[in-house]
Amino acid sequence: MSNGKAYTIGIDIGGTNIEAGIVDQEGSIIKRVRTSMAQHETLKDLLKEVKALLEPFPENMIGVGIGAPDVNCYKGTIEHAVNLKWNGIVPLAEIAREVFQMQVRTMNDANAAALGEMYFGSGQHHNDFILLTLGTGVGSGVISNRRLVLGQQGMASKLGHVVVIPNGAYHPGSGLYGTLEAYCSSFGIVNRAKTLLEEYPNSVLQQHQSLTPALIAEAAANGDEVSIKTFKQTGEILGKAIANFVHFSAPEAVVLFGGITLAGDLLLEPTRKAMEENLLKVFHNKVQLKISSLNGADAAILGAASLFKYEL
Amino acid sequence: MSNGKAYTIGIDIGGTNIEAGIVDQEGSIIKRVRTSMAQHETLKDLLKEVKALLEPFPENMIGVGIGAPDVNCYKGTIEHAVNLKWNGIVPLAEIAREVFQMQVRTMNDANAAALGEMYFGSGQHHNDFILLTLGTGVGSGVISNRRLVLGQQGMASKLGHVVVIPNGAYHPGSGLYGTLEAYCSSFGIVNRAKTLLEEYPNSVLQQHQSLTPALIAEAAANGDEVSIKTFKQTGEILGKAIANFVHFSAPEAVVLFGGITLAGDLLLEPTRKAMEENLLKVFHNKVQLKISSLNGADAAILGAASLFKYEL
Repeated sequence: MSNGKAYTIGIDIGGTNIEAGIVDQEGSIIKRVRTSMAQHETLKDLLKEVKALLEPFPENMIGVGIGAPDVNCYKGTIEHAVNLKWNGIVPLAEIAREVFQMQVRTMNDANAAALGEMYFGSGQHHNDFILLTLGTGVGSGVISNRRLVLGQQGMASKLGHVVVIPNGAYHPGSGLYGTLEAYCSSFGIVNRAKTLLEEYPNSVLQQHQSLTPALIAEAAANGDEVSIKTFKQTGEILGKAIANFVHFSAPEAVVLFGGITLAGDLLLEPTRKAMEENLLKVFHNKVQLKISSLNGADAAILGAASLFKYEL
Repeated sequence: MSNGKAYTIGIDIGGTNIEAGIVDQEGSIIKRVRTSMAQHETLKDLLKEVKALLEPFPENMIGVGIGAPDVNCYKGTIEHAVNLKWNGIVPLAEIAREVFQMQVRTMNDANAAALGEMYFGSGQHHNDFILLTLGTGVGSGVISNRRLVLGQQGMASKLGHVVVIPNGAYHPGSGLYGTLEAYCSSFGIVNRAKTLLEEYPNSVLQQHQSLTPALIAEAAANGDEVSIKTFKQTGEILGKAIANFVHFSAPEAVVLFGGITLAGDLLLEPTRKAMEENLLKVFHNKVQLKISSLNGADAAILGAASLFKYEL
């Protein structure tokens, strides 16, 4: 497999699954694997398994990039992650170096995803953009002049925990009220649909035992009124929050990622409308709102692999 | 005046006054002048007057730094400033170069002020901090890893226009509702005091024809209940807004500047409390809230002069 090209391993550690791949410098994933968190007791076992699945490696390997929740990118540690089974401070980079015997770089998963967008996705042509990942939680990465906004100890861009409705819905994970995550995470969206369903006994959504944003998006595409309203109301809140973010960092684009974006224009249109209504005139029609051009597993792997394109 | 030292001219153009000074590289202002906007029809006349007042210059002059509202720092232009008497696009840098026959650098006034704090004031020891200037308007500058967050066309960090209370008080200048500026500008604070005064016929504030934040701060220091409440309620809103900003850029410090800060702890304490209550646990007791160590006119001049310490 020697052809003069250089390769990076990208690994994304999530609460449920681990996605990994071998990536060339143009962002092509030449091999991709997945394993589940449940199968591994320790981080070391998990990384050994990933290594075994990915082998054999091409000749010219640059290193291993890893995205994970609650990473301190300066120390290479996972610190007090709420959605992982390891408590306290986990020496992620150190363990990975031992397993792979390569250079290792680590980053908060949403920040890694933003770098993935910058080098290989919807952020390629932007100096300033914000990535919002709308999933189990609402994650974010902020790029200012082609640099990540990292803040003290790399803790910046926790935009899911920005309050959008003071004294609004309680979010158990954070202990805060009325945050973006309380409304625009999968949980928030499903909750909104459930509330609306109480008034719509004939909605197709009534047929499902448990709802997901993907199911609601499908029903919306087929004209289900509850589902359409769910995305409309979600977009109204999301758009207001994005307007505030625009006033902070003046991005050229806001890139949305995650299952909720399957709703397409049914989400984008109300979001864009609410964003524009809450922006200063100087920003009107100056901020692109778009859905990530990368697909789910690719984005996570490319984000992690792209850590070797970015100098802290 | 030749002593081997190098000097910069710092000019701050405000809606009412122009502050200017000659500054050495350690941030000492060796000469300072002021003129008023009313006296000058054109920007060129104004700058000629500033030059005449500042002369003679020391031998080793580096250049002229200018802070002004609504500056596009990449183009050196003032664009559609709402608080200045010149409309449209004003070629600020070009005119200043012609008048001074020196290198000229320009910047939005609040961003310049943030650079002044970084090099000479309360931001000297911070890689990441936010400056909030609370005056006629609420301005801001965001420093991320010793770099300004500038965004597209330098339009970033308009934190005064972030919505803190959805559908809240209308702010005529921006056309937005419930923004930070609607509540925490001089206007917002005076309005709050006036509203409270309706229930306090015996407040010392009743003796004044027109109120200012400085007057209210003085009355608060003397125990006036309306004034104390005014700063408490203002701090509660300010603190919530700051919590959102912390979730965005994870600053080590938030530096407050402006007349309202004369209230000292009567403002800081409720602000800090509201900030902490609305922060994720990981940020608790990690963000310093402090009042700028620079005085008014100094900060503006030093900010403008510091443009020659910073490479765009």
